[in-house]
Amino acid sequence: MRLILFVVRKCSAFSSRLPINSFQVRFSHDQIWGSSKLHRKIKIPNPLRERIMADPKIEEILAPLRANVKEQGDLVRKLKEEKAPEIDIKKAVVELKTRKKVLEDKELSLAPNEELFDRAKMEDLIKRRFFYDQSFAIYGGITGQFDFGPMGCALKSNMIQLWRKYFILQEQMLEVDCSILTPEPVLKASGHVERFADLMTKDTKTGECFRLDHLIKAHLEKIKSEKNTKIELKTEIEDILVRLDGMTADDMSALMKRFDMKSPISGNELTPPIEFNLMFNTQIGPTGLVKGFLRPETAQGIFVNFKRLLEFNQGRLPFAAAQIGNSFRNEISPRSGLLRVREFTMCEIEHFCDSKDHPKFESIKDTKMLLYSANNQEQGKAAEVVTIGEAVANGTVNNETLGYFMARIHLYLLAVGIDPNKLRFRQHMGNEMAHYACDCWDAECLSSYGWIECVGCADRSAYDLTQHTKATGTRLAAEKKLPAPKQVEVVEAVANKAAIGKEFKKDAKVINDALASLDYAALELMQNSLESNGAYTLSTSNGEFKLTSNLVSVKKTQKTVHVEEIIPSVIEPSFGIGRILYCILEHNFKMREGDEQRTYFSLPPSVAPMKCAVLPLSGNAEFHQFVRELSQELIENDVSHKVDDSSGSIGRRYARTDELGVPYAITVDFDTIKEPHTVTLRERDSMGQVRLLLSEVPSVVKDLSNSKLTWADVEKKFPKFEQQENVKGA
Amino acid sequence: MRLILFVVRKCSAFSSRLPINSFQVRFSHDQIWGSSKLHRKIKIPNPLRERIMADPKIEEILAPLRANVKEQGDLVRKLKEEKAPEIDIKKAVVELKTRKKVLEDKELSLAPNEELFDRAKMEDLIKRRFFYDQSFAIYGGITGQFDFGPMGCALKSNMIQLWRKYFILQEQMLEVDCSILTPEPVLKASGHVERFADLMTKDTKTGECFRLDHLIKAHLEKIKSEKNTKIELKTEIEDILVRLDGMTADDMSALMKRFDMKSPISGNELTPPIEFNLMFNTQIGPTGLVKGFLRPETAQGIFVNFKRLLEFNQGRLPFAAAQIGNSFRNEISPRSGLLRVREFTMCEIEHFCDSKDHPKFESIKDTKMLLYSANNQEQGKAAEVVTIGEAVANGTVNNETLGYFMARIHLYLLAVGIDPNKLRFRQHMGNEMAHYACDCWDAECLSSYGWIECVGCADRSAYDLTQHTKATGTRLAAEKKLPAPKQVEVVEAVANKAAIGKEFKKDAKVINDALASLDYAALELMQNSLESNGAYTLSTSNGEFKLTSNLVSVKKTQKTVHVEEIIPSVIEPSFGIGRILYCILEHNFKMREGDEQRTYFSLPPSVAPMKCAVLPLSGNAEFHQFVRELSQELIENDVSHKVDDSSGSIGRRYARTDELGVPYAITVDFDTIKEPHTVTLRERDSMGQVRLLLSEVPSVVKDLSNSKLTWADVEKKFPKFEQQENVKGA
Repeated sequence: MRLILFVVRKCSAFSSRLPINSFQVRFSHDQIWGSSKLHRKIKIPNPLRERIMADPKIEEILAPLRANVKEQGDLVRKLKEEKAPEIDIKKAVVELKTRKKVLEDKELSLAPNEELFDRAKMEDLIKRRFFYDQSFAIYGGITGQFDFGPMGCALKSNMIQLWRKYFILQEQMLEVDCSILTPEPVLKASGHVERFADLMTKDTKTGECFRLDHLIKAHLEKIKSEKNTKIELKTEIEDILVRLDGMTADDMSALMKRFDMKSPISGNELTPPIEFNLMFNTQIGPTGLVKGFLRPETAQGIFVNFKRLLEFNQGRLPFAAAQIGNSFRNEISPRSGLLRVREFTMCEIEHFCDSKDHPKFESIKDTKMLLYSANNQEQGKAAEVVTIGEAVANGTVNNETLGYFMARIHLYLLAVGIDPNKLRFRQHMGNEMAHYACDCWDAECLSSYGWIECVGCADRSAYDLTQHTKATGTRLAAEKKLPAPKQVEVVEAVANKAAIGKEFKKDAKVINDALASLDYAALELMQNSLESNGAYTLSTSNGEFKLTSNLVSVKKTQKTVHVEEIIPSVIEPSFGIGRILYCILEHNFKMREGDEQRTYFSLPPSVAPMKCAVLPLSGNAEFHQFVRELSQELIENDVSHKVDDSSGSIGRRYARTDELGVPYAITVDFDTIKEPHTVTLRERDSMGQVRLLLSEVPSVVKDLSNSKLTWADVEKKFPKFEQQENVKGA
Repeated sequence: MRLILFVVRKCSAFSSRLPINSFQVRFSHDQIWGSSKLHRKIKIPNPLRERIMADPKIEEILAPLRANVKEQGDLVRKLKEEKAPEIDIKKAVVELKTRKKVLEDKELSLAPNEELFDRAKMEDLIKRRFFYDQSFAIYGGITGQFDFGPMGCALKSNMIQLWRKYFILQEQMLEVDCSILTPEPVLKASGHVERFADLMTKDTKTGECFRLDHLIKAHLEKIKSEKNTKIELKTEIEDILVRLDGMTADDMSALMKRFDMKSPISGNELTPPIEFNLMFNTQIGPTGLVKGFLRPETAQGIFVNFKRLLEFNQGRLPFAAAQIGNSFRNEISPRSGLLRVREFTMCEIEHFCDSKDHPKFESIKDTKMLLYSANNQEQGKAAEVVTIGEAVANGTVNNETLGYFMARIHLYLLAVGIDPNKLRFRQHMGNEMAHYACDCWDAECLSSYGWIECVGCADRSAYDLTQHTKATGTRLAAEKKLPAPKQVEVVEAVANKAAIGKEFKKDAKVINDALASLDYAALELMQNSLESNGAYTLSTSNGEFKLTSNLVSVKKTQKTVHVEEIIPSVIEPSFGIGRILYCILEHNFKMREGDEQRTYFSLPPSVAPMKCAVLPLSGNAEFHQFVRELSQELIENDVSHKVDDSSGSIGRRYARTDELGVPYAITVDFDTIKEPHTVTLRERDSMGQVRLLLSEVPSVVKDLSNSKLTWADVEKKFPKFEQQENVKGA
């Protein structure tokens, strides 16, 4: 349970818990205790196909569950309309979520299985070819930290380059690169110091820590799995497990007592729930007095630079700023490989606007997307494929700008290799959203861990800019020209700075700043108070101060204004690069038909770690010169590649480049030596080969990699080259 | 003073202190107390021209100083040859450095001034156009941390992309992306925990901290500047200031006492010197027991992954791994803007090799570079322009691989915009190098702060791999096939694991690991000890253990081996991106002749933040469609650009894009509306303009940006467009 979800930001990537579902299994290097063997094969259902095909038999089974959800959804709506007590609404929502979860699990379990996914096999490939692996493994490793090897690093870097093209270049965004080390006051204002926490419990003797929801889940699952557990208790436990996500510290504490939970490792007593702040802390500078944190998100760096960015944009709205960089969260018990880690790369956009219309909406309005609206969730209905144009028109998606970004996110995810059948946008239900958000949609990818939130897209209104304005006294607002000048009454506090300085000394600055940032209502109050009591009590970050009439007064004047001040709204798409990367790998992990040992990644050329391999047929010295020249030509065409002149049959080397996800292979053979010099070009997925001139191949591979050419084009243009691939032969 | 310089690694970027010289001034936002106004104009000498022209008058003045250095250099050499006591050599080296500094300062002060550089003006531009600025400024800012705005971020990102092309792609390196948070044992092994420290002193009452060498320098400079200070004392102080760099804690402590130094802020007493470790520390995980640091360099991430990388490279040497990422150093008193910061981006390469020859050396051997060899430094000679081929041939540069990388660094720096007249490679003198290094050259750029170390290039031998092998028991070594199999005597410790386990319980693993990693000499010792005393005392990371003959024995066997084990040597080029970026800005900061208010950055198109600006002549509605289409075409050509349709004369908008360092501007005017649609294309540095078809311009700008076309080519191909630029007009 991430407490922060309901209080301060994040309705964006990384904040929500992983869904607990029927195929949740453990990562082999998880630090989770007990239970659960690694299932060798995991069924990946195809929810899209299921929905489109709408099997009547399946619908029959689901019907009562759908009705269950709808009934409760209607109740929640009714309670809200009646403005029923908060506590009643909360209870009803928890019940709604429970029913929704049961429906969703059933839906997934009934969906036709598209393929058998062998996670152990994929993990083996990821480690063996060093896409990524645990950091500091020779020192025993650290959980929740991963090092990207050459292939993972190149894949990640290509994803980021494509992201830059899709967003920074095409949307003309302002990219910034801000500090990771962040002083405490900034994160106090954003709410992270107080509320960015998870619940944990400690072994009272050894001090070992457990994330509380994980511990409860493991404990209850164990009871549930025991033979002599009664059926009623099993049912109750199922119910508790589903509700766990929304539970408070008190609820969990009660569960710990009721089921007499002890440390699963030592059997010792456990402490009551403790709130553990997830930010890494350190001290900036040598005194040890300046407290700092590693940023938990990149967004705050953009907000604190809002004024400079607005100025750079010549004072005009809308504009978007973006940042690519690392963030850090001190997870209590990291798990699930790249999906929950302590250090991760994010790409975040903050789009500042005063109107929610979008000039380019027309260009994407026909994009078809799988939307799972809050309404459908509440009504027990399935997700639906609609165009984003329809969704905005009928109000499912709140506004054009939000819809525009959702479509762009969708297109980006498809471009980097996410399977369109395993991608949906799920809207947060009213009770899931941070209180300031108007609307929030997560791009979720289906993986063997369930639906994974990979990109959050939230309409965050003016929350952060307002918070930082309050904390600093620097107005983070834009000015907009009025259609016509108007007369306004200006109310301001007039401080007698000399007298304040004399009386309050070092607090004077804080007092003057606080006075300058008072809003209209506060000034009215002050004036009344000064008139009636001759004094006003001012709240500041340094505490309260009593100000008498000789120190401050309120002045009202008439003024002609030509502009109005606007605190812009913010639409925030937030991408978790590691999560997307993991889902790309899962969605593109393939086995050759008839040979399960030949696994490979069918990565799109645009993000594949290398664009091609250069393979001399054998160690024959006559090939060297051609290989060298070809490599040089590829470099000049900016085509990343790998020369594999190791021994082993050509088939074996094809298999190796397939494993690395390299889409093309160029083979230099005995015909290459003859004039005209030709080579074969092989495509990874089809294993088709063509023969073409050595001099042509670099630009062909370049165009293939940049999507300016398809393999079908190449097969049309050049003669087919027929030769059986023989992996086994030496 | 960076203590570590002389003990563990770094002879690479960021480690050495900034040179103190005659034009050292303060950054406006420095946190340094007292003294020193910002000189508005700073003379930048041109050392290269000076040397080439070899003005006989200047040489006359320098001759006695050169002789002074040579005399002392000869003495140092003699002492070394005679194997004189360490302390005598050290003393002589300090004196040598003093003389060398005097010579170098004089040389720079006599050099003809190429230009007047106005740092305040440049800083104003950097802040005004948000290239970068202090982080968290609205919260009062943090020293030593900077946020890069849109222009700085794009410049940095383009520098990194070009770096990737120069090194990762062209040299076929393995790029990795490792964790920033690093557990303590890793940095213990590398030596950072113990020795990566600076000396500081604290105000005994307020706790305020001062970097000790800065404090001493400020204090002595103040005395020196006072009217009634005697000439002898002034001379002595000058001497001390030059020696400060090499002083120990005791030396500095003595100075503090002798000159009765107090806190320059409060006047309170100061503590004796304290070693302050420069790494930021934190705790990984919730227990608070796993100590971690933010990495102080990216290199260690590569070393700990050596085995995986070697395996990825199919076990073969040589190969190079590279990493681009942030590192962190908790500077006591950051200063000089981007030059000494707490958080910075590095690009590091670790080239692992068993031979120092380089197959591509031939391709760069004619590169002319300004080399300042240790010998020339010791002999009071100036730096010399030589080809890297000569330098390697005559032994100035130790080997081809080191020379190859130096040339590649040189070419990269020129490509990103470093002025070739302000670039030199300075060799570390024997006493500057870490003890393991065979040779070390720094690429230094001349700036208004003096010569700045921007890239370190060190031959680090096998130091780090050996350290991590010792710490983990994992052998970080490669195997090399022998020309012919050979018979060797294999000596190994045979541990009675059961008995060891019984006797030493939890220490058994450490003991077994230590036994397995004993080298030949240690095994000989053990055998002798077991034979004579029946026991052997084994040192491990958990302390010493006495092993009796029943627990361990030494076995000698004959074995035919086909491979030999090699701990590869490492050549490490280490780039400080922020420092290079700062020097690029200085080297490219220009003023228009006759108008000092029109400042601009003449950045090379390849790294310029944006490649072009699109400017409609006025707000005329007929221009909109053309501007929109042009922008779309540029996007499709991957050309970053900015549409500036704000009001203001075209001249004023040209001036604005010049300030951003944008090399080209396309203007849409009334002739554009007519068929055939044409536009003007303007080049920033020459302000020359040509007229060409709207449809042609995107690909022309693309080719200009990729250096596939020069402006001279464009001026030849298209008709000149003559129009006076008028900045002042509205």
